[in-house]
Amino acid sequence: MIKVIDFIHTNRDRYVSELKDYLAIPSISALPEHQGDVRRCAEWTAEEMTRVGLENVKLVETPGNPVVYGDWLHAEGAPTILFYGHYDVQPVDPLDLWETPPFEASVRDGEIYARGSADDKGQVFMHFKAIEAHMKQHGKLPVNLRVIIEGEEEVGSKNLDNFIKANKDTLGADVVVISDSAMFDRGVPSICYGLRGLTYFQIDVRGTNSDLHSGIFGGSVANPAMVLAQMLAKMRDTSGRIRVPGFYDDVRELTQAERDEWKKLPWSDKRYMKELGAPKLFGETGFTTLERRWGRPTLEVNGMLSGFTGEGAKTVLPAVAMAKVSMRLVPDQHPDKIADLFEAYVKELAPKTVEVKVTRMHGGKPWMADFDNTYVRAAGRAIEQGFGKTPVFCREGGSIPVVATFQEELGIPSVLFGVGLPDENAHAPNEKLDLDNFHNGIVASAILYEEIGSRR
Amino acid sequence: MIKVIDFIHTNRDRYVSELKDYLAIPSISALPEHQGDVRRCAEWTAEEMTRVGLENVKLVETPGNPVVYGDWLHAEGAPTILFYGHYDVQPVDPLDLWETPPFEASVRDGEIYARGSADDKGQVFMHFKAIEAHMKQHGKLPVNLRVIIEGEEEVGSKNLDNFIKANKDTLGADVVVISDSAMFDRGVPSICYGLRGLTYFQIDVRGTNSDLHSGIFGGSVANPAMVLAQMLAKMRDTSGRIRVPGFYDDVRELTQAERDEWKKLPWSDKRYMKELGAPKLFGETGFTTLERRWGRPTLEVNGMLSGFTGEGAKTVLPAVAMAKVSMRLVPDQHPDKIADLFEAYVKELAPKTVEVKVTRMHGGKPWMADFDNTYVRAAGRAIEQGFGKTPVFCREGGSIPVVATFQEELGIPSVLFGVGLPDENAHAPNEKLDLDNFHNGIVASAILYEEIGSRR
Repeated sequence: MIKVIDFIHTNRDRYVSELKDYLAIPSISALPEHQGDVRRCAEWTAEEMTRVGLENVKLVETPGNPVVYGDWLHAEGAPTILFYGHYDVQPVDPLDLWETPPFEASVRDGEIYARGSADDKGQVFMHFKAIEAHMKQHGKLPVNLRVIIEGEEEVGSKNLDNFIKANKDTLGADVVVISDSAMFDRGVPSICYGLRGLTYFQIDVRGTNSDLHSGIFGGSVANPAMVLAQMLAKMRDTSGRIRVPGFYDDVRELTQAERDEWKKLPWSDKRYMKELGAPKLFGETGFTTLERRWGRPTLEVNGMLSGFTGEGAKTVLPAVAMAKVSMRLVPDQHPDKIADLFEAYVKELAPKTVEVKVTRMHGGKPWMADFDNTYVRAAGRAIEQGFGKTPVFCREGGSIPVVATFQEELGIPSVLFGVGLPDENAHAPNEKLDLDNFHNGIVASAILYEEIGSRR
Repeated sequence: MIKVIDFIHTNRDRYVSELKDYLAIPSISALPEHQGDVRRCAEWTAEEMTRVGLENVKLVETPGNPVVYGDWLHAEGAPTILFYGHYDVQPVDPLDLWETPPFEASVRDGEIYARGSADDKGQVFMHFKAIEAHMKQHGKLPVNLRVIIEGEEEVGSKNLDNFIKANKDTLGADVVVISDSAMFDRGVPSICYGLRGLTYFQIDVRGTNSDLHSGIFGGSVANPAMVLAQMLAKMRDTSGRIRVPGFYDDVRELTQAERDEWKKLPWSDKRYMKELGAPKLFGETGFTTLERRWGRPTLEVNGMLSGFTGEGAKTVLPAVAMAKVSMRLVPDQHPDKIADLFEAYVKELAPKTVEVKVTRMHGGKPWMADFDNTYVRAAGRAIEQGFGKTPVFCREGGSIPVVATFQEELGIPSVLFGVGLPDENAHAPNEKLDLDNFHNGIVASAILYEEIGSRR
């Protein structure tokens, strides 16, 4: 391993320069106008996988964006890792808040700034470089490896479940490794054993056929923006409790043991507030900030649009209003059941003075692992050697729905091996990745292969 | 007068063709990028005023857009009309809902479609052509006339009050004539004797310094879109009543006599609902539709924006949310007092978890006339001759704040001599003006000058 680690240390500059090329491709899966870029990014990913020494590399077509597949299966008798990541990225608006262009990666104070740097190209690339290091130094890997990098994670992985179901035979493995999450804090590497689920909606309210003059017509017909506001206001109360009937029925309560564990983590509400620039924290009464982020569900308005939103004043009574609303779910909530409850509630809230349409966008199940298994412990040792610190165990507020699918369809446990940081603006302007964590992550990944490979 | 009326009838095609040129100038006062167009429109207006025979035509500079002034003061012993109109127009978004481009006027089924056709260039141009007809046929006008056409009506006429105050001496007149309103209905010409006032705000809510990942952070900080929705929801209840404390204190109640008059007007809620495409009407309980539009105040959300509003799903927890909110006022509400009450209420509603900023955009006083005066009766006769029907008397839900200023500063009563129609989309896509009303309006305006001029 020393040769591999040395190789990684001497190639830092090249890694950053290559990563910049990867980050330059605006593979925004949510926006149809970027479809060409998404495909170009899939092709770049495949070429890189071939370059680092993977075999059987191919784009597997789906009804949406292709999945990039590659493997290396010559470590006889050793276990097989299925590595999963995604090459698509989030949209970049509001663009004017970016300090440097989102697709021209720029290094400042040891961080690389670009859309996709943390989520997830940077973390995918870290594994490519770990593979490369083994191959360059030893001409082989210490473990069998299958790699799938998908292009629809940011739009709900809508074709991935079918891809996994259709390729059950060729995706056989002992453990799934995913690097698409953040460590607990700067200098506090972690292993993540739980994720929230998701269900996402668009609500459209129509009042009239066209926008009206708010003076001539105001007071005589419903205002769809006001109706929408009144509906949204009834979805969550001012104590942070979600008011969708039946919403909490299946919520698995936090155990006292888990709550005690989390209280030991190095955490400051004051620092968190300051970092986010929030005047005051807010959330469900009776739970700590970490509990609210990791172990409790939430309902959030993700977007809202109606009427005149430009500079100045326009006296319009809008014809339509739109909101995007999503819920994060915890074990044992099921996204389909919650979606049914939500849709029923929206229909109940909708007054007869308007037309209301609810569109189900996407969803994913929550996930929680037994963190005492062989592979989680191997990951712990790899992190410890790569970062020089024992990792802590924590959950994540975000969602990686595919983790539940791997468990259900392939019966394979997952290890969440993320090296992002909580303040790296994953879905916001000025997304960044700490380069020390990136380089340590390459070392840790290389060691992870060795650790898992040696468990024959 | 017969020669004048004949001249008007034989020039219909030319009028439409010239009006198209006027409507081609995108003089949107709300958008800074159209400032050049606004000035160009002022210049076009001035040139046209000179062409039709007005004298002393000039652009009077203000801190904002210029006021175009012109006069003809040679009708010795006759009264003086002060004609007021505006050459600026509303923004055009959403542009994709226009059937033909907003600044390429197009005639379909006897209506001319373009931004500004009804509000207010078409109605201003109608007077220019009435002046021209008198001048061409008789080389003189039957009345003294001062004309002021301003360029900031759609952004609250913010420099007009000062212009009027500064030019009291040169604006001396007996009556103000304004053509910037709609008649009661197609085939039901009307004289308008009351207008609602206005006060308009922007509310900005900030939760954090930047947009956040809704999974990682959701549940731990306030969501500014949700906070804004909850605040808006508390501004008006589901019975249509405005909940700003003190809001109704100065409202002049409708008299039974007026309510009885309005009940006689040809009106159908069913037809109104169908025309607007509203599933059901909505408004303050206990009042008819006309009462709610003309005689009762309202609070409307004019616009709303937060987070991700594009196609698809983005799991963002927005940093900021914005709403435009305005209130229409009735006698004897004062916009400044209402604005104070509203701001205090917003501050009361704002939770400590966010920063809330309220910006006062503009306002105007409500207005109501004694409709039995000489000039109103003269206007009634002019309408009757121009349109072949006795006009009805009604109020308007919109606001023309300058009417109150003319009354207060110059002590001059106003006559609202509008020929628009209620369904002409004044502030919406596909604004239009009925060309029969336009041509009849030219005749009626020419007769109005004669009727007022003969009152020596």
